Amino acid sequence: MGQKGFKKNLSFWISPSSNKVHVAKAKRTTTTFLKALRLTVIIGQVFSLLPVVGVFSNDARNIRFVKTSWKCVYSFLSLCGQIFISVLCIKKMAHSTVSLNGTSPVIFYMTTCVTMILFFKVAQRWPLLVQQITVSEEINPNFDVNLNRKCNFTCAVVLTLSSLEHILSLLSAVAGAAACYSYDDITYQIFVTHFYPWVFTYLPYSPYLGILTQFIHFQSTFIWNFSDLFVICVSYYLTSRLEQVNKKLLAAQGKYLPETFWRTTREDYCRATQTVRKVDDVISSVVFISFANNLFFVCLQLFNTLEDGLKSSANNCNGKTKKSGPLGGHEAATYFLFSLVYLLSRSVAVSLIASQVNTASIVPAPVLYDVPSPVYCVEVQRFLDQVNGDKVALSGLQFFLVTRGLLLTVAGTIVTYELVMFQFNTTSTIPLSNNTNLKLANMTSTMMTTLAAP
Amino acid sequence: MGQKGFKKNLSFWISPSSNKVHVAKAKRTTTTFLKALRLTVIIGQVFSLLPVVGVFSNDARNIRFVKTSWKCVYSFLSLCGQIFISVLCIKKMAHSTVSLNGTSPVIFYMTTCVTMILFFKVAQRWPLLVQQITVSEEINPNFDVNLNRKCNFTCAVVLTLSSLEHILSLLSAVAGAAACYSYDDITYQIFVTHFYPWVFTYLPYSPYLGILTQFIHFQSTFIWNFSDLFVICVSYYLTSRLEQVNKKLLAAQGKYLPETFWRTTREDYCRATQTVRKVDDVISSVVFISFANNLFFVCLQLFNTLEDGLKSSANNCNGKTKKSGPLGGHEAATYFLFSLVYLLSRSVAVSLIASQVNTASIVPAPVLYDVPSPVYCVEVQRFLDQVNGDKVALSGLQFFLVTRGLLLTVAGTIVTYELVMFQFNTTSTIPLSNNTNLKLANMTSTMMTTLAAP
Amino acid sequence: MGQKGFKKNLSFWISPSSNKVHVAKAKRTTTTFLKALRLTVIIGQVFSLLPVVGVFSNDARNIRFVKTSWKCVYSFLSLCGQIFISVLCIKKMAHSTVSLNGTSPVIFYMTTCVTMILFFKVAQRWPLLVQQITVSEEINPNFDVNLNRKCNFTCAVVLTLSSLEHILSLLSAVAGAAACYSYDDITYQIFVTHFYPWVFTYLPYSPYLGILTQFIHFQSTFIWNFSDLFVICVSYYLTSRLEQVNKKLLAAQGKYLPETFWRTTREDYCRATQTVRKVDDVISSVVFISFANNLFFVCLQLFNTLEDGLKSSANNCNGKTKKSGPLGGHEAATYFLFSLVYLLSRSVAVSLIASQVNTASIVPAPVLYDVPSPVYCVEVQRFLDQVNGDKVALSGLQFFLVTRGLLLTVAGTIVTYELVMFQFNTTSTIPLSNNTNLKLANMTSTMMTTLAAP
Amino acid sequence: MGQKGFKKNLSFWISPSSNKVHVAKAKRTTTTFLKALRLTVIIGQVFSLLPVVGVFSNDARNIRFVKTSWKCVYSFLSLCGQIFISVLCIKKMAHSTVSLNGTSPVIFYMTTCVTMILFFKVAQRWPLLVQQITVSEEINPNFDVNLNRKCNFTCAVVLTLSSLEHILSLLSAVAGAAACYSYDDITYQIFVTHFYPWVFTYLPYSPYLGILTQFIHFQSTFIWNFSDLFVICVSYYLTSRLEQVNKKLLAAQGKYLPETFWRTTREDYCRATQTVRKVDDVISSVVFISFANNLFFVCLQLFNTLEDGLKSSANNCNGKTKKSGPLGGHEAATYFLFSLVYLLSRSVAVSLIASQVNTASIVPAPVLYDVPSPVYCVEVQRFLDQVNGDKVALSGLQFFLVTRGLLLTVAGTIVTYELVMFQFNTTSTIPLSNNTNLKLANMTSTMMTTLAAP
Repeated sequence: MGQKGFKKNLSFWISPSSNKVHVAKAKRTTTTFLKALRLTVIIGQVFSLLPVVGVFSNDARNIRFVKTSWKCVYSFLSLCGQIFISVLCIKKMAHSTVSLNGTSPVIFYMTTCVTMILFFKVAQRWPLLVQQITVSEEINPNFDVNLNRKCNFTCAVVLTLSSLEHILSLLSAVAGAAACYSYDDITYQIFVTHFYPWVFTYLPYSPYLGILTQFIHFQSTFIWNFSDLFVICVSYYLTSRLEQVNKKLLAAQGKYLPETFWRTTREDYCRATQTVRKVDDVISSVVFISFANNLFFVCLQLFNTLEDGLKSSANNCNGKTKKSGPLGGHEAATYFLFSLVYLLSRSVAVSLIASQVNTASIVPAPVLYDVPSPVYCVEVQRFLDQVNGDKVALSGLQFFLVTRGLLLTVAGTIVTYELVMFQFNTTSTIPLSNNTNLKLANMTSTMMTTLAAP
Repeated sequence: MGQKGFKKNLSFWISPSSNKVHVAKAKRTTTTFLKALRLTVIIGQVFSLLPVVGVFSNDARNIRFVKTSWKCVYSFLSLCGQIFISVLCIKKMAHSTVSLNGTSPVIFYMTTCVTMILFFKVAQRWPLLVQQITVSEEINPNFDVNLNRKCNFTCAVVLTLSSLEHILSLLSAVAGAAACYSYDDITYQIFVTHFYPWVFTYLPYSPYLGILTQFIHFQSTFIWNFSDLFVICVSYYLTSRLEQVNKKLLAAQGKYLPETFWRTTREDYCRATQTVRKVDDVISSVVFISFANNLFFVCLQLFNTLEDGLKSSANNCNGKTKKSGPLGGHEAATYFLFSLVYLLSRSVAVSLIASQVNTASIVPAPVLYDVPSPVYCVEVQRFLDQVNGDKVALSGLQFFLVTRGLLLTVAGTIVTYELVMFQFNTTSTIPLSNNTNLKLANMTSTMMTTLAAP
Repeated sequence: MGQKGFKKNLSFWISPSSNKVHVAKAKRTTTTFLKALRLTVIIGQVFSLLPVVGVFSNDARNIRFVKTSWKCVYSFLSLCGQIFISVLCIKKMAHSTVSLNGTSPVIFYMTTCVTMILFFKVAQRWPLLVQQITVSEEINPNFDVNLNRKCNFTCAVVLTLSSLEHILSLLSAVAGAAACYSYDDITYQIFVTHFYPWVFTYLPYSPYLGILTQFIHFQSTFIWNFSDLFVICVSYYLTSRLEQVNKKLLAAQGKYLPETFWRTTREDYCRATQTVRKVDDVISSVVFISFANNLFFVCLQLFNTLEDGLKSSANNCNGKTKKSGPLGGHEAATYFLFSLVYLLSRSVAVSLIASQVNTASIVPAPVLYDVPSPVYCVEVQRFLDQVNGDKVALSGLQFFLVTRGLLLTVAGTIVTYELVMFQFNTTSTIPLSNNTNLKLANMTSTMMTTLAAP
Repeated sequence: MGQKGFKKNLSFWISPSSNKVHVAKAKRTTTTFLKALRLTVIIGQVFSLLPVVGVFSNDARNIRFVKTSWKCVYSFLSLCGQIFISVLCIKKMAHSTVSLNGTSPVIFYMTTCVTMILFFKVAQRWPLLVQQITVSEEINPNFDVNLNRKCNFTCAVVLTLSSLEHILSLLSAVAGAAACYSYDDITYQIFVTHFYPWVFTYLPYSPYLGILTQFIHFQSTFIWNFSDLFVICVSYYLTSRLEQVNKKLLAAQGKYLPETFWRTTREDYCRATQTVRKVDDVISSVVFISFANNLFFVCLQLFNTLEDGLKSSANNCNGKTKKSGPLGGHEAATYFLFSLVYLLSRSVAVSLIASQVNTASIVPAPVLYDVPSPVYCVEVQRFLDQVNGDKVALSGLQFFLVTRGLLLTVAGTIVTYELVMFQFNTTSTIPLSNNTNLKLANMTSTMMTTLAAP
């Protein structure tokens, strides 16, 4: 739209009701995609994701993907490290009996590798995406002042909680090692050897390797969290774009406005949905891996919790549990519980926030049904056709759309899977009231061992 | 239809006001949202829900939510009581082995707490909702004379049946206690101690505490029933609004009516759907908790019934069952059967009645397809676009729409879950034809014990 | 539509292309709903269903539902008989251990009762339905000459096959009795006592009671088959109505036809969909019971087949199987296999034929997309809006629409249920290679017994 | 976009023919359905499928289905061979205990028979289809130069991989025979007798019969692969038709183009969707059998893999495994793994490539929403109505549409089925830590045997 058209719209908007001007005054500050996602992108780059240069610039043209930049080199080296650990994990798994829990480190590290490769691809398409969005923002500036705050706050919360979870996992690992050795005997060597068996079964111990392993593990944990964080912040931005159109529409509900209003609003909506489509085109692989990952680990953690509660996680050495350590012997249980609750909350949060893009996109419909007959025009009809016909939502590789209904479907799937897997579990908690059937006790214990690792 | 019929219809509809008067004469009595839901709201307030003032007034402006009113205070105190019992239940559960039946009192009391909080939030938004609906009713008065009667009759039926169920549960509890003690020995202390173990395991017995516990239990039972009742009555009202539009349309099927008729009818329909949307916005959380609750307890009760039939519920003390008491020893079985049938009927009723809102909203479509070509106009097209494009229904937190299809989906889910859980059950009814394998008998009994509490 | 409009259309249809007249000449013979369904209705009345008078008349006004007609009396007496047997079955079931196969006669007879009541209700609404359809047929005569033949042929096939199945079931029952007694000893008394234990456990034997029981069983079998037959024939008629519109449209594909053509065709389509809607309104309960019944018995029969194959059905007396009788000892297996194949074919046939109503209703869409631009008009748009917006199909109490997709959903559900139930089965075929673990053999046999009756 | 841009676009599009010429210049080479599918059809004919004459001709009228051609005779003889083997397999299965793996050769050969019959029917309708498509191609020539290359490349890849799989299966069979006999003793007789027990149990060995059996097995393997290959290549063609329309549209996004452009583009799209519909009408049965087959064998192979890993496949003779042979004793494991990976990749590839037809058909929508208001016309609206209303996709006998979502549904179904079947598996891997409970070991081994063959 040329300068003239923009002016015409502006003049239109100033006249019909003075309150519009008032709104414009109060929200003079505009925000941009660049500003809203800056902190998120920087956090990603700290963990070697999204290696684009120019993140501190406010000009979209400065954002570039340079293969020879140190960020790319850092990303590449990190990826090598992750692949290295993954290969060791696979080797370890191939030489042991197969079990669901045994596969979880393999899946954990392999998901990290895949996530890194996906973000590498996102980074390549990121500069163009940012420029396209910036063009769209120049036509429709975004006045949502809370957007930046929301994004930054979410970054802070996710970082804090994932750090806390990482620390608890380390404490739990120390406590796990302490179940076999006394607390005083635990050296860094014992700790890393115990915590990362897939590395030190095949490689000799050295402090450097230990630190490297820990760094890779640390990075892996945060990369997992980051894909969720990234999806959340992008969803915030997209929802905010749609909400701005909705705000304009809801203020116009039932009013006698000229065709020009419906036309410009429809064009705004059209631009917003195009933004959603372009963003989804770039990040739908990240959405897919994030949802698949959450689904797998929620199933796994819930199954573990139902299976043996919170008690038996620590005594997998040789039966002795010591009531010492910073959390008085409850390190494993605390970690386990915190981890489950955090995982569930994060998964639900990602689903709900990402589905708000879809929810916001269907808000115009009731307003458009309510347009008074005298001012009904072909623009309203086109608008309505688009709102009803177009499915606007983030998607997981176009396999599924992220809508509110998806959460229910996923929850139902999880319940079904848990119920089926839960059947192994029940047999493992037989209260042996009768001492004469010792053989049955043995059998039960044998089955318990088995079922604990299906 | 000949030329004459066309004229007659035209003259009949040409001055829409005169037609309105005609209809109004036949059905002078109008009804309002306030009147239709008065009894329901009052019943809710008796059980400390929906604490708004002015329920007896016929003027919507008198309905207000006053935080300092005695109703709010009563609600708040009740909520404290429920939370208190919930905490005791959780404490009790945490100290015993986990089982599905063991968790049911916890879920029962926690659902009550959540329901109370949700109705507190509904109450805060209730005055505004009532005023908006009243405005809409002033434009389109509701002539459905049966509405009030239907609502009040439903209130009476639900209250009666839930009272009956509560009395049967008390009788069953007395009979349960009588299985351990003789009938003459049963004091109030023994009864409450036996019936509410989660309270009296941690607190010393006193008659006041017993009465308080019973009151809280009583309140909790009725609150559970009330959310279903509330959803039913609100659905009645919404269906009645849509039905009035449908009646007008069905009378006009195939007739040659002017654009004005289609316009006013479309506007009526639009207002009715907006009412549905506004009401859903306020009560969708209540719908969600009501459906989730019904789903959980139907699954649980069906599972219990399939598991051990109706016989073994009474002899969980030490094997002796006495054929005495008001229902001759069948108290538990009677309660169990009545409770299951009542629960199933109520759940199906809520689903079907709430889904009528959706069913009523799609009735106009066939009439609109049938509009004769000469009088087809943009109003008919808009009307049809809305009927086909707009999903009008109550929803559970927007996660699911309450349609007839939902009932089938839920039924299928229940059958699947029961089939999966049912697998534990079969092993527990082995007819031991051979006496030599006593160990197997032992094993079976052990497994029965286990499986009875998965 | 008046005489004039009809003439105008006719004149239009004669002119554009001479082949239209040719078509009209070739298919001068019209058929009606009354004629097409006459044989079906008569068969129903033989088995005491659909008690309306005037089925032999060609005038719709002669079809009436008369409460005092001998047909109604016959229906009522039959219903009493069915209820009587159902009550005996329930009594028998209540006094034995619960098992899936044990419940099947109860469900069989109770379904018959419900089906009879539903057809009673259909009969009450049948005269009006027939009159409405006749009015519609006067405007659009049905030229489908194959319709009557198809309906009558289907009646013949279903009757023959269900008779065959009934005879096989009797032979199988005789063979079952012969497993306990020698063939020469089998009297009528032994046969009916063995075959209908639910009657003769409670009532003393008399030949009259035996014949009555057999008659009721015979009626019950055919009523079950009849609801499927009825749904098939009604679907034939509805599909034929829609196909006639489709034929007209497909002949017009891509041609430059005036608005009048699209208007009359749209009105034809509209009438056809209204007929579907009216018929569905009356018979949707029959569709529901037919589909539910088929689903239940397919699940049950498949489970029985997977469980113990075809061998063990005969030797449930005391282990001795005799190689005599008309089918050389294979009576039970033959019946079992024939029954399963017939049941599966019939269920699939009902689903596919009933779903053709839906399939036929969406055929116009591609033709309408292909209308050349110069002749595109509002009539084409309305037609397309209806085809895309309107879901035309038979339904099961509006809970589900009978579409092709439904068959796949049902098949998936059956596979899931069978897989879950199949798990009991596998444990019952342990090849005992080692003789030392006799206890295990005992255990296995015990479990087999149990699992055979979940 | 300013006034100038509008003019430029207008002048560019105003004479649509000149634009066409421009495009035609750049992409002078056209391709046709005949050329694109030539190699595929020839491969099919080598394996006795699609017996039409004239495949080397470029004129569609030369393609004919001649019942007396030697191709038909070859097809018919092959079908007889397949039916012969199927009957032997069924006979073999009927005389052994039922197990999932035991049924797989039966299903394998029967599927081949059904596939051959289906391709016979496709061949009968192929000439007409080719002619219809050729007519459509004369109006819209297809300029996609990559299409032929893609089809031929896919043929090469599928042929190579399926040959490799077949060779591995032979090697695995030789190794399986070598487990019982020494490598030097293995004669051709021993090999075929061991590999095809269903033939040589009933028929005496002769080298001719052995070669015939091997040829039929070889043909069967490739026919299975061919139906997937056929669906892939046809999908490539259909996608390419739709993509050409999409390319034209995406180039026009947001431009001011006259109604003529939208009309011709809509007509192009309409033709493309009609082509899809016609092709689907002919090949939907092949799509169905291909998807059903893939689903069944993926479930079976996954289950086998989860059940006993890759180890125990070779030692099913009498426990001795020899580390010799071309792949050092790993023939069975290599075949097993390769087969599973190939099967999974092929199934996913077919689903994804076939679903691209659907994906390509909804690309126009966003462009049409973005048409500027001044040039919006009834043609754009019709186009949009078609894109939103019409479901364009290949289907499996109209039971399901092949969309991206289907893949997810199928994946979910497979996971559920595997989880349910997986439950048998877990009990078979009990690590017997305690030697005293030998009976339990026996029991476990017995159960393992059982569960290995459910």
